[in-house]
Amino acid sequence: MQSDRTRVLIDSIRRLLRRGATSHLNKIVNKTHAADLSVVFRSLSGSQQQTLFQMIRDTEQKGMLLGELDEDTAVEIIEYLNIEDIVEIFESMPNDDVADLLGRLPEEMSQAILEKMKKDESEEVEDLLRYEDDTAGGIMVPDFIALGQDITAKEAIESLQKEHLEVEMAFYLYVIDEYGKLVGVSSLRQLVVVPPETPLKEFMTTDVFSVQTDMDQEEVAKIVARYDILAVPVVDVSHKLVGIVTVDDVIDIFRREATEDILKMAGAGEEFVETKSVLKSTRIRLPWLFASCLGGIVAFFIIGKFESSLYKIAYLAAFIPVIMGMGGNIGTQSSTIVVRGLATGRINIRDFWTVVIKELAIGVILGLIYGILIGSVAQFRYSIEALAISVALAVICSMSLAALIGSLVPMSFAKINIDPAVATGPFVTTAIDIIAVFFYFLIATTLLGI
Amino acid sequence: MQSDRTRVLIDSIRRLLRRGATSHLNKIVNKTHAADLSVVFRSLSGSQQQTLFQMIRDTEQKGMLLGELDEDTAVEIIEYLNIEDIVEIFESMPNDDVADLLGRLPEEMSQAILEKMKKDESEEVEDLLRYEDDTAGGIMVPDFIALGQDITAKEAIESLQKEHLEVEMAFYLYVIDEYGKLVGVSSLRQLVVVPPETPLKEFMTTDVFSVQTDMDQEEVAKIVARYDILAVPVVDVSHKLVGIVTVDDVIDIFRREATEDILKMAGAGEEFVETKSVLKSTRIRLPWLFASCLGGIVAFFIIGKFESSLYKIAYLAAFIPVIMGMGGNIGTQSSTIVVRGLATGRINIRDFWTVVIKELAIGVILGLIYGILIGSVAQFRYSIEALAISVALAVICSMSLAALIGSLVPMSFAKINIDPAVATGPFVTTAIDIIAVFFYFLIATTLLGI
Repeated sequence: MQSDRTRVLIDSIRRLLRRGATSHLNKIVNKTHAADLSVVFRSLSGSQQQTLFQMIRDTEQKGMLLGELDEDTAVEIIEYLNIEDIVEIFESMPNDDVADLLGRLPEEMSQAILEKMKKDESEEVEDLLRYEDDTAGGIMVPDFIALGQDITAKEAIESLQKEHLEVEMAFYLYVIDEYGKLVGVSSLRQLVVVPPETPLKEFMTTDVFSVQTDMDQEEVAKIVARYDILAVPVVDVSHKLVGIVTVDDVIDIFRREATEDILKMAGAGEEFVETKSVLKSTRIRLPWLFASCLGGIVAFFIIGKFESSLYKIAYLAAFIPVIMGMGGNIGTQSSTIVVRGLATGRINIRDFWTVVIKELAIGVILGLIYGILIGSVAQFRYSIEALAISVALAVICSMSLAALIGSLVPMSFAKINIDPAVATGPFVTTAIDIIAVFFYFLIATTLLGI
Repeated sequence: MQSDRTRVLIDSIRRLLRRGATSHLNKIVNKTHAADLSVVFRSLSGSQQQTLFQMIRDTEQKGMLLGELDEDTAVEIIEYLNIEDIVEIFESMPNDDVADLLGRLPEEMSQAILEKMKKDESEEVEDLLRYEDDTAGGIMVPDFIALGQDITAKEAIESLQKEHLEVEMAFYLYVIDEYGKLVGVSSLRQLVVVPPETPLKEFMTTDVFSVQTDMDQEEVAKIVARYDILAVPVVDVSHKLVGIVTVDDVIDIFRREATEDILKMAGAGEEFVETKSVLKSTRIRLPWLFASCLGGIVAFFIIGKFESSLYKIAYLAAFIPVIMGMGGNIGTQSSTIVVRGLATGRINIRDFWTVVIKELAIGVILGLIYGILIGSVAQFRYSIEALAISVALAVICSMSLAALIGSLVPMSFAKINIDPAVATGPFVTTAIDIIAVFFYFLIATTLLGI
């Protein structure tokens, strides 16, 4: 899944690390793009990461690399550096990245760093630290170009030549009134297209999308994606422009949110754990398995109740796996479609019953098809009609209920504003297992008269 | 998961449609952003979509809406229009979107449209139709700004004022040599910052990322994301610049790929099916359930082999669900982590054995914990030590094997270049079910001596 170039790079760096070929490594590390280095770092051990990081000469390159790495890895590397070096690197980094990292360092370390940073930089960072991590305020950069509405296109271009050189992604120019309130926007393109003496207010777009500092980052990402814009301005309660969220951060948000959803649905935590140690991974995955453990224990008490029937017809047990399996799989289909549909906006929470009833209908149809198929196999194997009919009915029952539960649970969670992904995977499967087993024994013992 | 504003809009439009309040609808439809309308369209029936689409007066608005809609929906709407209207709308749309839609229309319809389109437009579209849908060539736009290297900054700005007004996302200016080969890039920003008489070749960046027309779209998206660029130039085999892929398309690719992966892993097809009809959904989901049906049937033949043991100790059956459930859940955790890790580049295919052995270790540890727990419950319920030990061993066995299979299968698929997501969900679960049941009966009958 990686380009060949990256693979070659990873292989060479690992080989050189094994050989201890310092001068070779030094050359490669210092001419590789920080973004590529960050990919290489994922395949290295902690001590190898330290070794490579020390080799980077350029402070800005160090800063870019820290910004590209997973926060966990970045924090581990930073903890080995001395405060002076950290301050120097942080001052070269965008303030939103610095705020993210500071928020994860030990309290006294981050205080020491803030004290040594230049006053205006540290104030900006402290401002950012006030916002929740996953809101517009937490992901915005406070660097943007904002000019008054009476400035002309020519003056705006001149100001670009003198000031704002540090602004990372300069493609929009925001227009503010005397109170700092956002009133319009112009692209750099428009600036060079209009006659030079035109004031901004005459050609700016006044219908400008903006978001509040406390808006959830996923919402912000959706706005940027929906309107195909490159950056969205962030305003505070008084509509004062305080920062912008750029499209590169939006891509990161979508990829991270997709990963989180996938992991939650599989009951494997929220953050990606493979890069963590075996014990750490075990600790994160342990509690998610507890639901299915409890469910399994409940199932065995239920089956225990039918013990006397099992002594009479032992092969009843043979159908437990297929009935559980069919229910479990169609339940996973339904819950996955609903959770992803809600996340991408393809399913609307207002269509609650339309969605649930449709899933139920699909469950009934698929249940009929597979029920008849599996019932026929049962008849072929044991030639007992009542048993074959029981198995068929149990499959229909478990598949229909599974599709119902698999859609009803995430829809209900979304309705009461609980993340549907988190409640979906192990919980739904476990509930379906118990219900499927119970109905199967109930139907079979009734029809077989045991 | 939608903003309140969108919800209000959807509700009002639906209410007005029910009431048949045409003049009200007309007003709303014509002042709503096409991107918002596309969200509304997802909640409407086919005939409602037709009604609303007819109300749009502005051809460009119609084109933007078609570009934002799912291709399925867009094609359905287009098929109701007459050729002249389609041509007019298509001529207002970006050529990459037109090519995508034409590729999905009936052959004779798309031929008729191409014949009526302006010659230069239709040639561009036909050029695009030659590339595979999911490659750089298939997603690029052929509109970009390309200038010679001796042009000065001032001349470049003048050309922006006169030409290139149709270019959608103009933030980079590409520099080409006399053969059309890409030699450099400059941002609009740089253009206004340098002295006006400087020729492009003196300030352009020569180290410019570019991709070949046949590169897979996911690779292209990863490059744009990794280097935080807004557009990547696409070149043909002779390094001639033929188009650009912009960041807004990259966002769409990531979201679509994540959805595809999630659906494949749940065995629910590849494309999102909820918006399709019940019968269509049923047809797509039917074959994916067949693996678990076959697996279940195999499991019941296996259990059938142990029928005589079941007659002796019927409560053996009671532990089938918990042993299957624990194996299934940890297997899903492992395969999900590996598939997502490979997709995001966090797991490297070169670390094959490191990853698999780590997952196995986690499986063994979690198996020990849950094995002892479930074994204790079995002892508490039945007070038969050999049974409790069998259950504990079976849980350990099934969880370790599940973690092993759950990581080994997707890693192996990735190694031989099969998409790991597609082979993961139902296949892995089914394999684990069969193995878990088999080992359980083997261990229990041996230890209990039956």
